[in-house]
Amino acid sequence: MNAPVVEKLRQLFGERLRLEQGIRQQFCQAPPGIELSPPDAVVTVRSEDEIVQVVKLCREYGVALIPSGARSSLEGQINAPQGGVCVDCSEMNAIIDVNVTDMTATVQPGVTREQLNSHLRETGLFFSVDPGANASMGGMAATRASGTNSVRYGTMAGNVKAARWIMANGSVAAIGSRAPKSAMGLDLLAIAIGSEGTLGIFSELQVRLHPVPEAIVAGVCSFDSVDNAVQTVASALGQGLSIARIELLDATAVRACNAYSAALGLVDTPHLFLEFHGDRSTVASSVELFKDCAGEYGGQVRISERLEERTALWKARHDAWWAFHAFYKGRKGLATDVCVPLSCLSACISATAADIAASGLDAPLIGHVGDGNFHLLIMLDEGEDESADIQAFLSRLSSRALSFGGTVSGEHGVGQGKLKWMSAQHGAALQFMRAIKSALDPDNLFNPGKMYQSLRVDAR
Amino acid sequence: MNAPVVEKLRQLFGERLRLEQGIRQQFCQAPPGIELSPPDAVVTVRSEDEIVQVVKLCREYGVALIPSGARSSLEGQINAPQGGVCVDCSEMNAIIDVNVTDMTATVQPGVTREQLNSHLRETGLFFSVDPGANASMGGMAATRASGTNSVRYGTMAGNVKAARWIMANGSVAAIGSRAPKSAMGLDLLAIAIGSEGTLGIFSELQVRLHPVPEAIVAGVCSFDSVDNAVQTVASALGQGLSIARIELLDATAVRACNAYSAALGLVDTPHLFLEFHGDRSTVASSVELFKDCAGEYGGQVRISERLEERTALWKARHDAWWAFHAFYKGRKGLATDVCVPLSCLSACISATAADIAASGLDAPLIGHVGDGNFHLLIMLDEGEDESADIQAFLSRLSSRALSFGGTVSGEHGVGQGKLKWMSAQHGAALQFMRAIKSALDPDNLFNPGKMYQSLRVDAR
Repeated sequence: MNAPVVEKLRQLFGERLRLEQGIRQQFCQAPPGIELSPPDAVVTVRSEDEIVQVVKLCREYGVALIPSGARSSLEGQINAPQGGVCVDCSEMNAIIDVNVTDMTATVQPGVTREQLNSHLRETGLFFSVDPGANASMGGMAATRASGTNSVRYGTMAGNVKAARWIMANGSVAAIGSRAPKSAMGLDLLAIAIGSEGTLGIFSELQVRLHPVPEAIVAGVCSFDSVDNAVQTVASALGQGLSIARIELLDATAVRACNAYSAALGLVDTPHLFLEFHGDRSTVASSVELFKDCAGEYGGQVRISERLEERTALWKARHDAWWAFHAFYKGRKGLATDVCVPLSCLSACISATAADIAASGLDAPLIGHVGDGNFHLLIMLDEGEDESADIQAFLSRLSSRALSFGGTVSGEHGVGQGKLKWMSAQHGAALQFMRAIKSALDPDNLFNPGKMYQSLRVDAR
Repeated sequence: MNAPVVEKLRQLFGERLRLEQGIRQQFCQAPPGIELSPPDAVVTVRSEDEIVQVVKLCREYGVALIPSGARSSLEGQINAPQGGVCVDCSEMNAIIDVNVTDMTATVQPGVTREQLNSHLRETGLFFSVDPGANASMGGMAATRASGTNSVRYGTMAGNVKAARWIMANGSVAAIGSRAPKSAMGLDLLAIAIGSEGTLGIFSELQVRLHPVPEAIVAGVCSFDSVDNAVQTVASALGQGLSIARIELLDATAVRACNAYSAALGLVDTPHLFLEFHGDRSTVASSVELFKDCAGEYGGQVRISERLEERTALWKARHDAWWAFHAFYKGRKGLATDVCVPLSCLSACISATAADIAASGLDAPLIGHVGDGNFHLLIMLDEGEDESADIQAFLSRLSSRALSFGGTVSGEHGVGQGKLKWMSAQHGAALQFMRAIKSALDPDNLFNPGKMYQSLRVDAR
């Protein structure tokens, strides 16, 4: 990055411009097999106007911009393979407005989901999307995040109503609508959600909130096979079961969680972790419906009505990452996810389990199975993540998801990690994604080298 | 349209090419104040490949293409202000597949919603989106249709999972995903839904189905004012009420419906028409919650558990258009809709009611109030739809919706009728809609003169 740009950034941001290598290295992340590339500079913005200024400056000098929030993405979304300026939005963390009647919150992009939910505590409302990490709202919107309760409340695609979005020419676009629905024009908001910082930078988001349910009941259900667990899920959802969370853990994952959370005390077989939301009678009838479905597939249901039991259960689920690392001491987990139609989930999981066994891998499986989505944490020895065998395994996993009519990522996104799968997944449609990218960001300034593989040298 | 194009169309389509004025006039529609413009030709396609052929031919000769389904749109979406070829998809009406586990149906674009629901009768599933008219799936997707039960099941935006979409260069893009969610790339499907035939033509759609609920209970609730009805809706939804339909009729609308459907027998005050879906206990507790909320605003609830009563109620609601025309004999209804945040709905409706009174209009109001959406049917005398007073009233209505943070159309779309409001509603964002249009359809072949006002002469 040339000296005049640095000088102008210093004039604009003073001490909020950081050039030290130690800092810059905290603002990049890359999945296995991808080189870690820090940005040339990090600027911490505090207002929409500051984002506009840095966009205009970078545009003038042809410098790349990489927006950053809580830095919890997993596929290299904030890596900087072409250098440039990382736009750190973490200090834009004001909650601007909560509208109880409309059930919306208007927030700056750096607000985290835990911060928002703490703020909402007295309102009887909550923000539903929970990807595990305490991610920022801007980052969650940019990556189309979802998580354990998306089976009931939807992903970020359904939970952002409107946004202010800084475009490559420095314009601020107000996208979406505060109204519950709109039939006026192209849905630019839907293109913004999941565009991973390649088209614009969020400066404000209006998100949907949901009423805190009158009753919340959690439970576990053990099965003798993953197949029976998945059949139960499909059968229950097909009968209209209303459920807020329905999470699969395979036997390996259960063993590791048992070892980590002594109080959990599950039998070492595949389990579903469950949570029901609603008024008391709805929850009671949902639990009965679920028990009937599970019974047909040999499932043993244990319901926890007490808050402490429920908290312990979901803590165990959220601690799974740590549990797996404790179980496989000295090894490092490589997280990946795919998502397939529910009708193919069982077949896809059993083919994957066979591949794990044949490949001699340790890879516990956990899944948001109501969404057809499952994750593996492949436990690797030092240096193994670069190995051709692991890359070949990941490649078979992606191909398998596509062969079942699924997607190479249900949650983690493309970034740099899954970029090479875009053509296989989208075929002719990829050219139209690239056309939209070129139309909205003709100089390829926003997060280059991601998603469309349009390195700047090609675009110019 | 020049002779070589006609000749080539005749070679491709034989008797399925129609040039007669009488036929062509059936393939256009325009809202008040817009000139009715028939296409130069109508071709009835029977396969994806035929759509590709007509697109390639029209591209070669620079001829406009206007896709058409059941021709039930209201804002001139199928009008042909620049002539061209109307691509009639009504005979592409095969139901290709129903997947009960995934709760999806794969259909050709000409399948109507009634046809699909008849086909599904034995499956325990149904397709939810109901805009009133027996619209085609392609048309509903293209206009982002919604309707009475979108408050529970969502609009077309949430009910199309995947599609095949013919682009201006003749490519067939497979967009969306059969998986329940995906984080791989730009959401082209979301741009296609609501693009009103300006970006591509659907050749196939995969839509979501929902389980037919165990119990369906309908009812009516009378109020002494529209404000109390709207407050009840906001309060009930804020407490997490699960409701499938919640429709407002103002006192004028109720009077007209009473006169048309003698058995209805409602008091002549504002009403909500209600429908609850779920298992028996959920429905029972939802009805109780609704009664509690309504009671606080003086609402009188009457529940109909019998199928005949429920059928009569919704028949009266769906016959409202005819009821209004019978009530105001010899006059013609002009339908329009706007949509605002729930917190502003009452204020927007009362300002509108005052405007109706001050303007001396007869304009019964009905609304999908759970969505903040309301419709007026302005009853006009012969020739009055061109009048400056009516246009000024419509203009005030649109401005008012925007001033309340709403949208100029919740359901009917832009077409030609609301094109002039795109700039006021979207500001800087409109240029990015136009950029996407130019990127995907650089010659402006698809449905020109709609939505973006990019007449072909400007685009070239």
